[in-house]
Amino acid sequence: MKTLSIQGRESRSEIHVGESLDRLADYIPADRRVVIITDSVVRDLYGKRFLHADVIAIGTGEQAKTLVTLDHIFEQLIEMEADRSVFIVGVGGGIVCDIAGFAASVYLRGVDFGYVSTTLLAQVDASVGGKTGVNFGGYKNMVGVFSQPRFVICDIALLATLPGEEVSCGFAEIVKHAIIADVGMFVFLEQNSSKALALEGSVIESLVYDSVTIKAGVVERDEKEKGERRILNFGHTFGHAIEKTAGLRHGEAVSLGMVIAAALSVERGLLRREDEARIVALLEKLRLPVRIAVDKDAVLDAMLKDKKRQGGSIKFVLTNGLGRATVQDVTFSEIEEIVRGLD
Amino acid sequence: MKTLSIQGRESRSEIHVGESLDRLADYIPADRRVVIITDSVVRDLYGKRFLHADVIAIGTGEQAKTLVTLDHIFEQLIEMEADRSVFIVGVGGGIVCDIAGFAASVYLRGVDFGYVSTTLLAQVDASVGGKTGVNFGGYKNMVGVFSQPRFVICDIALLATLPGEEVSCGFAEIVKHAIIADVGMFVFLEQNSSKALALEGSVIESLVYDSVTIKAGVVERDEKEKGERRILNFGHTFGHAIEKTAGLRHGEAVSLGMVIAAALSVERGLLRREDEARIVALLEKLRLPVRIAVDKDAVLDAMLKDKKRQGGSIKFVLTNGLGRATVQDVTFSEIEEIVRGLD
Repeated sequence: MKTLSIQGRESRSEIHVGESLDRLADYIPADRRVVIITDSVVRDLYGKRFLHADVIAIGTGEQAKTLVTLDHIFEQLIEMEADRSVFIVGVGGGIVCDIAGFAASVYLRGVDFGYVSTTLLAQVDASVGGKTGVNFGGYKNMVGVFSQPRFVICDIALLATLPGEEVSCGFAEIVKHAIIADVGMFVFLEQNSSKALALEGSVIESLVYDSVTIKAGVVERDEKEKGERRILNFGHTFGHAIEKTAGLRHGEAVSLGMVIAAALSVERGLLRREDEARIVALLEKLRLPVRIAVDKDAVLDAMLKDKKRQGGSIKFVLTNGLGRATVQDVTFSEIEEIVRGLD
Repeated sequence: MKTLSIQGRESRSEIHVGESLDRLADYIPADRRVVIITDSVVRDLYGKRFLHADVIAIGTGEQAKTLVTLDHIFEQLIEMEADRSVFIVGVGGGIVCDIAGFAASVYLRGVDFGYVSTTLLAQVDASVGGKTGVNFGGYKNMVGVFSQPRFVICDIALLATLPGEEVSCGFAEIVKHAIIADVGMFVFLEQNSSKALALEGSVIESLVYDSVTIKAGVVERDEKEKGERRILNFGHTFGHAIEKTAGLRHGEAVSLGMVIAAALSVERGLLRREDEARIVALLEKLRLPVRIAVDKDAVLDAMLKDKKRQGGSIKFVLTNGLGRATVQDVTFSEIEEIVRGLD
């Protein structure tokens, strides 16, 4: 097991990569009441290992990530008479962690919380960085707060029950971290893609740890996304729009978004064509989509309402060589040109 | 006009006592889009002075302070296509400010906001200290965050349209501040109660400024209510329970709560009987209730579910002499005895 500390402005967060769900109790002060927020699938798989905690189970998928679910959580917390001394633990994927973190951050104006990340995507992305929240009116993460969990347990063994396409989605964010910050990690991925897909313990633990290290470093330098943190959105500006309009999984949409961002990077003379090809090849090896027929008008409409929009252009993350990222203004007309040109 | 700065952990807040609503624009960077959140009564009275801002009007009273209202605000912000550069200004009393501050603190994970406080109660209490939030399931302020507004404008001239009983409610918090922190202010109140009730400008400005100074000092030393900040709850532990069960206004309930807290202080040998009598006399002069028939079972039930409850006792704020406060553990049985003994 390897542990990494993130110092947020408000509090410290510890990420334990390779720790087990069964040692959860070791990370919570002995006198604290624990309430676990999870989803029905995770509860059915691992509920027996939650021991003496109270459990609130929510539905699965993005459609559960709403204020209505939050309402339901508050009702149950009040029914349990949970006071400020409660310790909330989100056990699940990114959706469970985002909701559990938001619920904990606003219940009684904020109680302690931690996560046990059960998906690869959550382990390398959602559970690190302090973003919490829910969707609203069809837009992702419109309502939330920046708030760091006390701890995150990334239990690699839990990944064994994940469907294959869920695993691939985690790899999308891993590839993203390699592209924006670590060319060595990119090469490691190229060389170990089969072992990674087979969830070989040491390879996964290394990839999760390196991902968390990259993300944590960026977040520590820019907790509230005023500047550098934006590079973590590589592939996400298009990704969110595609996810919303084409109904793809987050990781699949990000994979497509990275392909588009790489193409735009080449067009601007920032990235060599052969490196673009390596990105596409690696995503394919990891069983991620690299092209798709989209409703172009719908994607454009979704992007114009995207929350990162500012004035007549969008801050867009590009790569200026494998292992490096840069944020540039891309005008609406350039965006339109790219989207219209998609095959 | 007098200005006071509060340094929160996250940001600085400026309180401008005696500033005018008409100079609101001076406090917002020129390039920012302004959305005003207000209630229907304030909009009807002062809406013409809002100038070019977009306006979201909510209902009035505690029943508007819910997640449903928040939902309604998010819908309108999205319809207005408000992005992260929006500047939200709550113009109204404590309820409007609490909701507007919470909405701004979670919309897109937090946008800038300020307040124009239009009631005496909000000027001396709600708008200072960074508490935001809504009620839930019949309990007050169950859901919210600690978040400081960029500025608060306390326009004394706006108080002229307040109903008399609303003015008295503001005095309840003013008296509280004097009791817990400033015996000189208590004497000033005793000597100027008629001028205060007549809303004489210099007297009110002085009382608002002194109140804000006391509250800001406490909040600055203990933003998240881990310790000292609790003294601001003087009169509020009973107050909240009475407010809820007897359907009184917040200030009226706090007045009754302070009478009970003073009696308990005398019983514990902390306060002299003659000072208890001065507290009761001052509240009466300011037209605040000092006794009421309550449903004792309902009050006890409400207190046991109060969010400040910890174990078998309640942290209770008492006064150990005019101008001073102390937090002591009071057991459930003592509470029951006091409530059962109310006439």
